[in-house]
Amino acid sequence: MPNYANDPSRTSWLHVSENSDFPIQNIPFGVFITKDDVITIGTRIGDYAIDMGALQQLGYFEGIELTDDMFMQDTLNDFISDGKKTWRLVRNRLSDIFLDSNPVLRDNASHKDIVIFNIADVEMLLPVQIGDYTDFYSSKEHATNVGKMFRDPENALLPNWLHIPVGYHGRSSTIVPSGIPVHRPYGQTLPNGETQPVFGPSKLVDFELETAFITTDANLMGEPVSVKDAEDYIFGMVLFNDWSARDIQKWEYVPLGPFLAKNFASSISPWIVTMDALEPFRCASPEQSPEPLPYLKQTGNHAFDINLEVAIKPETTEETIVSRSNFKYMYWTMSQQLAHHTVNGCRVNSGDMMGSGTISGPTEDSFGSMLELTWGGQKPLKMKDGTERKFINDNDTVIIRGYCQNEGLRIGFGEVSSKLLPAIDIKI
Amino acid sequence: MPNYANDPSRTSWLHVSENSDFPIQNIPFGVFITKDDVITIGTRIGDYAIDMGALQQLGYFEGIELTDDMFMQDTLNDFISDGKKTWRLVRNRLSDIFLDSNPVLRDNASHKDIVIFNIADVEMLLPVQIGDYTDFYSSKEHATNVGKMFRDPENALLPNWLHIPVGYHGRSSTIVPSGIPVHRPYGQTLPNGETQPVFGPSKLVDFELETAFITTDANLMGEPVSVKDAEDYIFGMVLFNDWSARDIQKWEYVPLGPFLAKNFASSISPWIVTMDALEPFRCASPEQSPEPLPYLKQTGNHAFDINLEVAIKPETTEETIVSRSNFKYMYWTMSQQLAHHTVNGCRVNSGDMMGSGTISGPTEDSFGSMLELTWGGQKPLKMKDGTERKFINDNDTVIIRGYCQNEGLRIGFGEVSSKLLPAIDIKI
Repeated sequence: MPNYANDPSRTSWLHVSENSDFPIQNIPFGVFITKDDVITIGTRIGDYAIDMGALQQLGYFEGIELTDDMFMQDTLNDFISDGKKTWRLVRNRLSDIFLDSNPVLRDNASHKDIVIFNIADVEMLLPVQIGDYTDFYSSKEHATNVGKMFRDPENALLPNWLHIPVGYHGRSSTIVPSGIPVHRPYGQTLPNGETQPVFGPSKLVDFELETAFITTDANLMGEPVSVKDAEDYIFGMVLFNDWSARDIQKWEYVPLGPFLAKNFASSISPWIVTMDALEPFRCASPEQSPEPLPYLKQTGNHAFDINLEVAIKPETTEETIVSRSNFKYMYWTMSQQLAHHTVNGCRVNSGDMMGSGTISGPTEDSFGSMLELTWGGQKPLKMKDGTERKFINDNDTVIIRGYCQNEGLRIGFGEVSSKLLPAIDIKI
Repeated sequence: MPNYANDPSRTSWLHVSENSDFPIQNIPFGVFITKDDVITIGTRIGDYAIDMGALQQLGYFEGIELTDDMFMQDTLNDFISDGKKTWRLVRNRLSDIFLDSNPVLRDNASHKDIVIFNIADVEMLLPVQIGDYTDFYSSKEHATNVGKMFRDPENALLPNWLHIPVGYHGRSSTIVPSGIPVHRPYGQTLPNGETQPVFGPSKLVDFELETAFITTDANLMGEPVSVKDAEDYIFGMVLFNDWSARDIQKWEYVPLGPFLAKNFASSISPWIVTMDALEPFRCASPEQSPEPLPYLKQTGNHAFDINLEVAIKPETTEETIVSRSNFKYMYWTMSQQLAHHTVNGCRVNSGDMMGSGTISGPTEDSFGSMLELTWGGQKPLKMKDGTERKFINDNDTVIIRGYCQNEGLRIGFGEVSSKLLPAIDIKI
């Protein structure tokens, strides 16, 4: 089936500003609530949120096999379950509905009134109910930086890293959409030079620049998904800030991995950009040496050229961009991650989320965490307002943005923006 | 509100054999499917499964505030969400309905026909939709054994272990009820003395003897649950076999913890035994030294005296009991685990599951895994049929049983039984 929604010559009768992340070629999927407390599945063109539930009720999806209430739901899980063919049919249909030359909705004022909202008038919700969330650790530069700081500078990469897309399970219940503030977490830490741990708010709260992909039902328990087929089970991608408390992490993580240092909050951008929309930005990954085992071996281009940046905005002054990176630096691809995840028969469901791991580029200004950017706090970052940051301060907002760009087209994710609030007042 | 369902003098008009795990004082909760494909929430007395959906439709829960379809659901999540007061009201009511002296259902043949099934005629399903699953590592004996084998025999316990109920996130999608067979998983391993990993079926599949507790909605994101209040948010417990592939685990687990070595399958017993039913078996925990930090400190008895055993049954011969242990050996209590889990504001929802970690006792015959029982395969176990086991063989069934016993009363869990099938045939 042609993916004609990607045609760069298409324009919409909805206004799209020049540098918008959301031209008619994007058509991402999300869930929003209107001022009248209606929750619906929707898409976005320019600065307009489109109510797909209303579109469905008005008959705009006729001819596509969908359950009657497919878009009148508060999560995308059922739609994602329907699989790649349906995603493409719906995305093509949306492209047609908003195509410049199509008068059907364009010239129907009462329908437009029901269907189209200013983006500022809706609140974005979590787009999927995330059953299971896995975080990978697939940036070689990040793994090397962490290894240098915490283990052995001469043998920074652990022996398994070049053979395994290392990953671990995370917590679904604290994944929140952009805009939800996060409190500085409490926890146990071991102060430098001490032997007894202390309890209190984390002193070293950090962001992690990541992306994440959302899956459809990929397999039954016991059945691996091959690396060749894996991309068919990936619905789309979001930006992801994997909030981390470095002092809690350092004390707790041996031997079973990070736990409370990570599960206090994880923030995602609310619009899932489909793999169909990202197709024009497919590119090569870094060379893999040694060659991966056969179940992870793939040919062709499986990376995506996605520009990423992180800004820190203090409460009352302007933001400072602290990192510029790119998703294409990842050593392991998403299809390798998914093939590895299922090779033991682990079941993957619709709405599961898999994080890339911190995305660090090759240069110091492309590192994906304050831990790396300030090299463990040794080299504070200068902010535009003259203050310095080793880690994230109370009331700072961390903003991650991402977009793809070629000569004719920009496809973006918008942003994931979340404010770090002070620790709550607790008496324990 | 009195918890009178626990009265040991009560007897039921339903037959309960002498050593049954399910006297009228138990009243566990589960979900089953009948031969007519009806899925319902139910309880068990003796060898009878009770259809609580049918009981509700017939008016037997009148006077208790419940949504109309509370028990006509395929998970217990909504019921568990209703909180401790409702659990107790329903359990007391069930005790009354089946009380020897109560003729209402006893003498109504047509109602009995609808409500009561032989346990052999129903299939037990997963009792809850598990949003997030966490596994702890709270047996000091187990952590010490593993530390001796894999790290430093002189410093077997890691420095954080006595201060933190160490835990990590697991995979919800592959938690299955007793009776579902499990395939030997594929994965990467590093053969002894080699530097390049190989791919194939795991050679060292193991069980882990655990229990798990199921929570109700405990908090909002950002709000800790105090150790004092934690027990109020625990609905009940199940037996838990945390299947593990030791060779995959050894190669993959540094630095982010076990992943594919664990997430191919985790098996639980299908009846959730409530904390109310376990109340008579409350007992002291091992002394905690050093004293825990204030947020983990508690007084009184917070352990439970639950006898546990593990049997291995080869395909065609009789079973051999390979371990006898007790839940009371756990160093950290469930309330400490839950308080720790939420101290950073991590949200805990209805139906979340938290595993104890492998439960090993102080003696060699009370260890909770083949890894420990055979000391890494060095001391194979003799089976009754004359064969030996270092780990679990294809077509072996692993059975975990658990029960509490005092002079007057036995409250049990039944069993979690699952067969290890050979690796599937895959071409990669």
